[in-house]
Amino acid sequence: MLVLMNVNATDEQTQAVCKRVEELGYRPHPLPGATRCAIGITGNKGAVEADALSQLPGVAEVIAVSKPYKLVSRDMKSEDTVVRFEGSDATVGGEELAMMAGPCSVESHDQLFRVAEKVAEGGARFLRGGAFKPRTSPYAFQGMGEAGLEIMAEAREAFGLLVVTEAICHESLALVDQYADMIQIGARNMQNFALLKLAGRSRKPVLLKRGMAATLDELLMAAEYIMSEGNYNVVLCERGIRTFTDHTRNTLDVGIVPAVRKLTHLPIIIDPSHAAGKRDKVVPLARAGVAVGADGVIVEVHCDPDRALSDGAQSLYPEQFAAMVGDLRKIGEIVGRTLSYPQSKIHADAVVTK
Amino acid sequence: MLVLMNVNATDEQTQAVCKRVEELGYRPHPLPGATRCAIGITGNKGAVEADALSQLPGVAEVIAVSKPYKLVSRDMKSEDTVVRFEGSDATVGGEELAMMAGPCSVESHDQLFRVAEKVAEGGARFLRGGAFKPRTSPYAFQGMGEAGLEIMAEAREAFGLLVVTEAICHESLALVDQYADMIQIGARNMQNFALLKLAGRSRKPVLLKRGMAATLDELLMAAEYIMSEGNYNVVLCERGIRTFTDHTRNTLDVGIVPAVRKLTHLPIIIDPSHAAGKRDKVVPLARAGVAVGADGVIVEVHCDPDRALSDGAQSLYPEQFAAMVGDLRKIGEIVGRTLSYPQSKIHADAVVTK
Amino acid sequence: MLVLMNVNATDEQTQAVCKRVEELGYRPHPLPGATRCAIGITGNKGAVEADALSQLPGVAEVIAVSKPYKLVSRDMKSEDTVVRFEGSDATVGGEELAMMAGPCSVESHDQLFRVAEKVAEGGARFLRGGAFKPRTSPYAFQGMGEAGLEIMAEAREAFGLLVVTEAICHESLALVDQYADMIQIGARNMQNFALLKLAGRSRKPVLLKRGMAATLDELLMAAEYIMSEGNYNVVLCERGIRTFTDHTRNTLDVGIVPAVRKLTHLPIIIDPSHAAGKRDKVVPLARAGVAVGADGVIVEVHCDPDRALSDGAQSLYPEQFAAMVGDLRKIGEIVGRTLSYPQSKIHADAVVTK
Amino acid sequence: MLVLMNVNATDEQTQAVCKRVEELGYRPHPLPGATRCAIGITGNKGAVEADALSQLPGVAEVIAVSKPYKLVSRDMKSEDTVVRFEGSDATVGGEELAMMAGPCSVESHDQLFRVAEKVAEGGARFLRGGAFKPRTSPYAFQGMGEAGLEIMAEAREAFGLLVVTEAICHESLALVDQYADMIQIGARNMQNFALLKLAGRSRKPVLLKRGMAATLDELLMAAEYIMSEGNYNVVLCERGIRTFTDHTRNTLDVGIVPAVRKLTHLPIIIDPSHAAGKRDKVVPLARAGVAVGADGVIVEVHCDPDRALSDGAQSLYPEQFAAMVGDLRKIGEIVGRTLSYPQSKIHADAVVTK
Repeated sequence: MLVLMNVNATDEQTQAVCKRVEELGYRPHPLPGATRCAIGITGNKGAVEADALSQLPGVAEVIAVSKPYKLVSRDMKSEDTVVRFEGSDATVGGEELAMMAGPCSVESHDQLFRVAEKVAEGGARFLRGGAFKPRTSPYAFQGMGEAGLEIMAEAREAFGLLVVTEAICHESLALVDQYADMIQIGARNMQNFALLKLAGRSRKPVLLKRGMAATLDELLMAAEYIMSEGNYNVVLCERGIRTFTDHTRNTLDVGIVPAVRKLTHLPIIIDPSHAAGKRDKVVPLARAGVAVGADGVIVEVHCDPDRALSDGAQSLYPEQFAAMVGDLRKIGEIVGRTLSYPQSKIHADAVVTK
Repeated sequence: MLVLMNVNATDEQTQAVCKRVEELGYRPHPLPGATRCAIGITGNKGAVEADALSQLPGVAEVIAVSKPYKLVSRDMKSEDTVVRFEGSDATVGGEELAMMAGPCSVESHDQLFRVAEKVAEGGARFLRGGAFKPRTSPYAFQGMGEAGLEIMAEAREAFGLLVVTEAICHESLALVDQYADMIQIGARNMQNFALLKLAGRSRKPVLLKRGMAATLDELLMAAEYIMSEGNYNVVLCERGIRTFTDHTRNTLDVGIVPAVRKLTHLPIIIDPSHAAGKRDKVVPLARAGVAVGADGVIVEVHCDPDRALSDGAQSLYPEQFAAMVGDLRKIGEIVGRTLSYPQSKIHADAVVTK
Repeated sequence: MLVLMNVNATDEQTQAVCKRVEELGYRPHPLPGATRCAIGITGNKGAVEADALSQLPGVAEVIAVSKPYKLVSRDMKSEDTVVRFEGSDATVGGEELAMMAGPCSVESHDQLFRVAEKVAEGGARFLRGGAFKPRTSPYAFQGMGEAGLEIMAEAREAFGLLVVTEAICHESLALVDQYADMIQIGARNMQNFALLKLAGRSRKPVLLKRGMAATLDELLMAAEYIMSEGNYNVVLCERGIRTFTDHTRNTLDVGIVPAVRKLTHLPIIIDPSHAAGKRDKVVPLARAGVAVGADGVIVEVHCDPDRALSDGAQSLYPEQFAAMVGDLRKIGEIVGRTLSYPQSKIHADAVVTK
Repeated sequence: MLVLMNVNATDEQTQAVCKRVEELGYRPHPLPGATRCAIGITGNKGAVEADALSQLPGVAEVIAVSKPYKLVSRDMKSEDTVVRFEGSDATVGGEELAMMAGPCSVESHDQLFRVAEKVAEGGARFLRGGAFKPRTSPYAFQGMGEAGLEIMAEAREAFGLLVVTEAICHESLALVDQYADMIQIGARNMQNFALLKLAGRSRKPVLLKRGMAATLDELLMAAEYIMSEGNYNVVLCERGIRTFTDHTRNTLDVGIVPAVRKLTHLPIIIDPSHAAGKRDKVVPLARAGVAVGADGVIVEVHCDPDRALSDGAQSLYPEQFAAMVGDLRKIGEIVGRTLSYPQSKIHADAVVTK
């Protein structure tokens, strides 16, 4: 922490700040400059509450130096976290790119099984699909609930996929914890701290989506909430932020990937579907995500997107998905990643991906 | 809904879109233009899902015309909603400006009673104060919980104030519903739809804060969630949005107030404290809020802000608050509002408000 | 300047940074902390270029402490600047609120004279109107050029108004400098540094509009460009920033007004017209601007806005303007400002201002 | 254009709007809906000015349908524009990826020649370097001016590179036009319409950088300004937009690339240096740019970045650049692009690119 005094601050004011710092249990280091004085603070274990100093007479600004997160920090653990799943050799954060695909919502047994078969063939190891849907309108389809989770669980057995699905409250979280392999916390709930704590008490890995207005620090602090309850298997997900632009639904912030690498050991994947908002931009954004260094991709795929109950416009056709996986495998190789599954070769060029 | 075809769309494509519109149960109205064709859609009760059409061949864009909200809409109810409270003549949305004040967090019986007395004297009719705190860091003070609610309830009796406090999950909501006069849903939970539904089942009025990245439509849809469960007493609150600026914690979007007036009958108040982030900007922003036409103000006040457990830097001193109320009363008169409480005259000029 | 080292930085790295600081001609002050070392830098006159240090081995972050502006800074000149105009007792930045009004574009002698007469009656001391228009489309009306300036100059004589109009290039700036009383630099040219330097060589006061994505520091540095050429009469103008919102054309950032007060001695006025984008929001935003403490208001007024060649939808009717001035006078009194001109009383309540 | 009436608009109001549409020379098509009436407008050649209708009684909203740009539109010219340069077989927008590299500023003959040799070896066909620098501070290095252009021109002859450099006013534009092969218009000048028109009168291709707050439509309209003056060789450039994030200097909006493809025939390249702000994020962003489908990359390279007069922290070392080109060649192949120059193989793996 650094306290910067005003140009015309008096010596008495500077001394008063130093005294207050000592009262708080830290050590002040006055640092006189050409035009103004700065006061360095040491002896603090974590972040000092800037609020206690910023409004004292003569103080111009308080500059935080220590980061408030601990468990998520690369300072704490320098090696990358590789998230593993019981009864499977799939990982997130290792050498292998994680491919997650499936419909926005589970709509029926038939719908999910059709698309699950296709994405498994196409190269996915994780099946996504919402049973509890956070919809902007109370009148929109809210998901099938537990019946949807049951269908997901059946599809896991049928196609050898890991199930990742969203929890939106304590009740749905208990159910998701029971049926799924990975608990998704959606962008709108990234700072639903009560939900984060519950997810932290689960032993299932958590997929934490970045909120639309969340800074990197806030995303990491949300992960810290989960980890501070004992669950260390957190995967971050960039899904686009809200900006002034209107040519995509959200702005995919690919620059967060190298920034995340520097600050935390946790893996990060990319969701190009929610960023794009329209199908024709999903594949280019997925390619950008792997090229920038993400640990994987989560995309929406539907066998009949024009009739999907939600997010149809941004859902890929299964053939597009399979072709995209072929592209991502090749880009992955360039950035030191593999995508070994499935063994069968996919003929990416046979499909128009634009 | 209007579907806009590409310049080079074929007649077959246009006809296919019309056919799809009919399949969805609506009536298409092709509207040939100089360079391209548009298709109007009528016969829909609410919003048509644009997704079902936007990706059909030849379609350039789908433009929504109907708004997805109903109960919140001024089209549905043209007179302003005036929110009333049991056992009190205080209102929000009527001629009287609503003044809400108190500490960020309830810290102790003594702390709350001291500040409650002061804000009651200064002109507040509502006592704010957090018992359950959504904090960015899991290591920060999380609030006193039910004990804090009890203290709030005692202060209500002692000083004749209405209590407004935040609920952050189903458990805290049940408690807040029991102790408080008004349930606050915080900015981070504006799209926590599970929580909104629970608040909708309460009979207590709800204070709904705008999310940091929420559009006006999203704010209204969040209110619609509450109203669709049967609770019609919703008060909106603008508390600053996230932008690129760094001179205030958030950017107070005063322009939303006249926009809200046009679209909905619900009242809207302003929270200058969270927008400002620093004490010296709170009073100017509060004045701007009343001048732009808000129905009231909610501010943080603390008797010893430098030692507050949270948000001290943005908390007003009690004398600043009382002086500010004096200013707001006078500005209120200019825009057709009153602030009759308290009866005793406040000498605003005796306090430096900058 | 403060250099923050990594947690695991070596002593050699810290020493190498100190050495580099000395090479740059400053004094390093190593400041060992509990987990990492910080290095304070003193001896610099202005801002140290962070670039020279931020990429050295072991450096985590470089934190700027000194502000890069000088002449605009309140540290340099603590009293408020009051901008004065030759041959007039009007001011900007003094006790009197500055009222500027007129059409978006000068369209004809008749159009300008009609509206000039009305705004003079209504309480304006400054006549705004564009002769050179920066339009998004090359096919839109680009302004009357010098002919428009001549009409403005005639209106000045006829109605006793000061003329403020925009320059968009070196040629138009030379003309504006010749005809007008105040040179406007538009939002799109806030960082057109060549134009700023030219404006700095004029002896006419400059109205500098904030760019749509400009931080406060960037706005102040743009003013510094003008002042560094010798022109100290700069008036800042907040006209709305670009955010994700869509209910107003831009988001009026009223919070910048108290922030500007703290950092600079220059005056700041508010442009509610370009922020609102629609007439019905202009008056509420103007009220907010005066309430938050701005030194004046610049608004668009047109006698027949539905037929205006530009910005008709956001132009006030003359009667609305006069009524608004009445409101602003009363709000001004509450925040310590006067609006003595015109002497004749305006009956604000006779006009519907919403 | 579509005019949407209020729910409670009267028939008279609807008829008045239709009459006004006819007065403007267009044809109105009333389109009664279940709850409200919409009025389609046809017969217009370009965009109708919404302002003339949006404030009429009973009008809820005016929705633009036609885009205001013409020459830039893919509707006007469906094949991709390939920009060519006199006396060179280099292109932008063809199959070959365009590689542009060089220092932020020309600092001396020696500095430029050292880096020019390196980037030519490394795979660049274009040499970037600023002789006229738009700097935020008037006290920062402002560029060498014409002397810098002369050095650039010499380097062109020495290393067979095409020269791209920025013009910031009419004087520098005349010089840049004389010395360089491609005129750069910087982000801060994207809506300096006077400068755009001058660039439109040159016969040299123009590199147009997107403004920090520019929408896609505004970027295209800026290109339209250049094209409307007769210069059809415009290359767009995404360099990051201003958002709330702080982990990169700007947010690289990769999603604009597929959006640009759909709307315009003009090429678009990516500038990862200004988006990243720090060296360690430049290469990942460049990879993302090619993967998303950009036509090329422009990056800052410096032989001694720690001593650069500007933007040192974001400049690559020459070896990083060469390695990056190797990566981009491989990613380019996956998305159907080539990078045939230089013929000599670059050993990308010999250099640490993170």
